[in-house]
Amino acid sequence: MTESIKSSASGSSPGAKVLAPTYEGDFVLDGELPLECGCTLVSPTLHYAVYGRLNAARDNAVLVCHALSGSALVGSWWPEVFAPGAVLSLEQDFVICINMLGSCYGSTGPGSVNPETGQPYGPDFPLISIRDNVRAQARLLDSLGVRRLRLVLGGSIGGMQALEWAIQFPERVQRGLVIGVAPLGAMGLALNHLQRQAIQHDPEWYGGRYLPQKPPRRGLSLARQIAMLSYKSAPLFEERYGRNPDRSGEDPWQADGQGSGLIGGRFDIAGYLDHQGARFIDRFDANSYLAILRTMDTWDPLRGYASPQEAFGRIRARLKFIGISTDWLFPAEDVRRFAETLRASGADAEYREMISAHGHDAFLAEQAELVRLLQ
Amino acid sequence: MTESIKSSASGSSPGAKVLAPTYEGDFVLDGELPLECGCTLVSPTLHYAVYGRLNAARDNAVLVCHALSGSALVGSWWPEVFAPGAVLSLEQDFVICINMLGSCYGSTGPGSVNPETGQPYGPDFPLISIRDNVRAQARLLDSLGVRRLRLVLGGSIGGMQALEWAIQFPERVQRGLVIGVAPLGAMGLALNHLQRQAIQHDPEWYGGRYLPQKPPRRGLSLARQIAMLSYKSAPLFEERYGRNPDRSGEDPWQADGQGSGLIGGRFDIAGYLDHQGARFIDRFDANSYLAILRTMDTWDPLRGYASPQEAFGRIRARLKFIGISTDWLFPAEDVRRFAETLRASGADAEYREMISAHGHDAFLAEQAELVRLLQ
Repeated sequence: MTESIKSSASGSSPGAKVLAPTYEGDFVLDGELPLECGCTLVSPTLHYAVYGRLNAARDNAVLVCHALSGSALVGSWWPEVFAPGAVLSLEQDFVICINMLGSCYGSTGPGSVNPETGQPYGPDFPLISIRDNVRAQARLLDSLGVRRLRLVLGGSIGGMQALEWAIQFPERVQRGLVIGVAPLGAMGLALNHLQRQAIQHDPEWYGGRYLPQKPPRRGLSLARQIAMLSYKSAPLFEERYGRNPDRSGEDPWQADGQGSGLIGGRFDIAGYLDHQGARFIDRFDANSYLAILRTMDTWDPLRGYASPQEAFGRIRARLKFIGISTDWLFPAEDVRRFAETLRASGADAEYREMISAHGHDAFLAEQAELVRLLQ
Repeated sequence: MTESIKSSASGSSPGAKVLAPTYEGDFVLDGELPLECGCTLVSPTLHYAVYGRLNAARDNAVLVCHALSGSALVGSWWPEVFAPGAVLSLEQDFVICINMLGSCYGSTGPGSVNPETGQPYGPDFPLISIRDNVRAQARLLDSLGVRRLRLVLGGSIGGMQALEWAIQFPERVQRGLVIGVAPLGAMGLALNHLQRQAIQHDPEWYGGRYLPQKPPRRGLSLARQIAMLSYKSAPLFEERYGRNPDRSGEDPWQADGQGSGLIGGRFDIAGYLDHQGARFIDRFDANSYLAILRTMDTWDPLRGYASPQEAFGRIRARLKFIGISTDWLFPAEDVRRFAETLRASGADAEYREMISAHGHDAFLAEQAELVRLLQ
């Protein structure tokens, strides 16, 4: 799995070493996990990895929360964050990363067997909120003897989890690092709506009841391609692909290989997107994708609180927010204003901007830059 | 048809009067239309509408070129541009608007019968370039006795045609107005690639050989929804829809009506996009959509010229380019630089920016603003 995850972090520096975890395994929650949506999961599994060791004082624990299609193997997809003198240290820290509920990398998700029915959940998999994830993660940390985190961090939906940790468990979080994220705005919700339809419309989806060996490949590929647009920036695409014809030699002025005059030979950007789609369907599950889109869509840190003051005023951690200059999925300006709202509500929330042409993806594609900003 | 076209100009001012054309009809080109791709169309039809009358001096002709899903009925989708004192005058001008080849509003397109086979073109419809369209339009203008245009104008793909007119027929164009357009960049090509796949993946598309009564509705709807994102702006979506639940009362925290936990009740932005998709499939044809995407993708005004100087130096018209401040399909900065390239190549090309929250769609959604800028 290490290799496939590594290749998934689209722009990760090819030279960076993939780090092996100290331990990788499953934690089965005892009994029920009540969910915000009103359902429960019975004895769900959390797949997790740890790097380094918990020290005697138990004050060196760090929780990394992964992004939509990431896994528990943070040493594989974020290796430069562990570089000497960088953000995390294999010698000093005890780093924990837990696969999100709903995902297809080991934690309970739509492809798992529902112990109550003996059948895979499939489309009946319930909505798991960010808060549900964080509460489940807390139970895993309890089992590891980790009471307090010196740092919780993540980018994108990982950042949603990091902030929710600081709100739900104020006494357990010393510092939080929230990268490239704010509650999803209307444009982000719109992008997720498009991706959802791409999968739903695929006749191979079968209402979510497809067989594992016959998944909705074209729908998931299109969903991933839509997402890739929102992860990258127009200037980056322009510089890399411009209006070049596909590098394999297709000609946009000629009909495609199937001979339809309505479909032309591809431009290079189209070849790139097709390639990204093809890579993704080999490593991710369509129903898991749908599940995590809902987790992202529904995140509202104020849900259940009377005011921002009541929610954010709980926070005891020192928070740092990072906006990415060319991010249009979670625009830097939205992140900056979000941090400001937290500050105005009594939280210790600093804002920094990462200058990068890579768009939202910069926290994965330009890890060295991110590390420089954080030092 | 008038009504359906009117409602298609998404943001058009509800109060504006729809103008009836002086004449609306078909022009059949005599003989063959050779195409840049190497194919020919035999006796293609151009559907067109005119407003006002050609004066005795024949110096009051104006050509309006429509955008992707527009029609010849410019008085229906751009009424405010005809307001007293605005850009066009029913009393003074002879305004011509011609449905693009490939479209489904009367001109020859994929749904038309190929006179050589007696069958509809379907997927065999050839690539029609912007230049092909302009050359065909010139033959129609010849038949109307219009030798010279006091103005040619258009937004989006209409602007591509307007500029191509000034390059191909320098002696026939006095002024040109090019709104919200430059050669499509990598991000625009990417967006079109996604839309194309949405249609191709629909099993009802049948490789382009669907029956008119059973078109690929879900694919075309998704394509339109992807396009709508690129026509509008994030701030506009945020202001109008934000994170509100769908106005019909769905709850994103609950499963959708079909009971899948993977698909939630919609947010308001999703309801809006679904509505836009549903409206579009009632008025547009999927193969026509694919045909015009290719027309847009392949537009390169420098094709066949040795340099920008050779292409743009031909121009004799006074050109005005309009960028739209929140347009991310054809960013204002791209339009500004494009106008600069034309100027550096010897053309008379002025640039103005339209300040609007509406994104690319502003030239249709905020016609009064556009008129003000042009006065």
